[in-house]
Amino acid sequence: MTYGLGLFLDDGLVITTDTRTNAGVDHVATVRKLNLFQRPGQSIMMLASAGNLATTQAVATLLEQRSSHAGHPHNLFEAPTMFDAANMVGGVLREVMMANADYVKGYGDPSASMLFGGQIAGAGHCLFLIYSAGNFIQATADTCFLQVGELKYGKPILDRAFRYGTTSMADAVKLSLLSFDATVRSNLSVAPPFDMICYRADSLEAVQIRRFEKQDAYYSDVRRSYSRSLRETVANLPVVDWPGVI
Amino acid sequence: MTYGLGLFLDDGLVITTDTRTNAGVDHVATVRKLNLFQRPGQSIMMLASAGNLATTQAVATLLEQRSSHAGHPHNLFEAPTMFDAANMVGGVLREVMMANADYVKGYGDPSASMLFGGQIAGAGHCLFLIYSAGNFIQATADTCFLQVGELKYGKPILDRAFRYGTTSMADAVKLSLLSFDATVRSNLSVAPPFDMICYRADSLEAVQIRRFEKQDAYYSDVRRSYSRSLRETVANLPVVDWPGVI
Repeated sequence: MTYGLGLFLDDGLVITTDTRTNAGVDHVATVRKLNLFQRPGQSIMMLASAGNLATTQAVATLLEQRSSHAGHPHNLFEAPTMFDAANMVGGVLREVMMANADYVKGYGDPSASMLFGGQIAGAGHCLFLIYSAGNFIQATADTCFLQVGELKYGKPILDRAFRYGTTSMADAVKLSLLSFDATVRSNLSVAPPFDMICYRADSLEAVQIRRFEKQDAYYSDVRRSYSRSLRETVANLPVVDWPGVI
Repeated sequence: MTYGLGLFLDDGLVITTDTRTNAGVDHVATVRKLNLFQRPGQSIMMLASAGNLATTQAVATLLEQRSSHAGHPHNLFEAPTMFDAANMVGGVLREVMMANADYVKGYGDPSASMLFGGQIAGAGHCLFLIYSAGNFIQATADTCFLQVGELKYGKPILDRAFRYGTTSMADAVKLSLLSFDATVRSNLSVAPPFDMICYRADSLEAVQIRRFEKQDAYYSDVRRSYSRSLRETVANLPVVDWPGVI
């Protein structure tokens, strides 16, 4: 299992994935699940994957190969819009699923889902969630975060605290780490290190992946401070009026 | 879907369920999912159910009927220990599943799981999670909360803030409501009103179900105060050191 999270801010994107891959308890490894397609000044695109690793790696590799071939219908750098680029990703995902799903089904789930975000010069930044079927939805001011994989544990803190137009990128980084920390505490199949990308809208500058190891000082600080504050917050909430019980 | 939560405190129990039952979007109703079996001074037992409503209601009704028949092997009031009583609940659940599962499977999931807690005079209070297979686990100081149904959204706040031996019953009520609120925000199939029981260990006094409606003043106050504090907490966390990005 994976957890992948994309936050859509008015001034950028924060995309995070864990790096745990497993095919049973005796085969646990660390794998990068983020892929970058960038030509600074022209287009910056990021792909985060969850699901069957053979499927997601095949999609990423095919996109890389085809994006270096001028004129290829799946060349991401020739996509006129991010919508068209997302359509290419969905198309390659369909192709890989068509080629492999029937062979794989007997052994496990061949499906995958992806977060795809970025910006092409001349238009705004966007974020998509691409389903295993190859169709996709787009983040908006109302639906301002998208998740793939093991998403339930990390959702409540985002529902409560992440707001498009209000949350800064610095706070989006904190919320992303806290959302991952909530997941890690509850599900063994999601684990640090986490890989994170922050993209500042309209910069069209190349992004870099920042890796947060389990012992990362900032990550440790954030989760410890947060747990302490949360316990204080609960202690300071009003006490229920329940005569004879409390 | 349901969400049921049992908190095991050193000085008592707090058990909560939602009341939403649905068999598709066009058939949504409110149903009490808590059943009480109590003889003050002698034994106080509480049963909270999740899963197929026909299954859980049959189990509760059979236990009620049999617990009024002296000498019946499923008379909860004649169980020497809470472990034996949990075994009776598991046994009746097996019986109902054996009788119905094959007929029901074609239409939907016949399974159910239950939280069963309480105290019998002369021994300590306990809390069990009874699986659809009729077997069960018991809450301990380490595993001090048990959940049934749609449990993921409401788990992180408990992982962070609920501690056996530290959390008071007043704070356990707050945490239960916040755990439910996190679930309600994310899953349409769990909804208020919530039914809650607080049992004070060694009192052996009859407990009463307190219903928290959606507009309940205390519930509204807790969730609003909590969301505000949480946003302040996040704002006050340290900012990541990420030159050129933040």
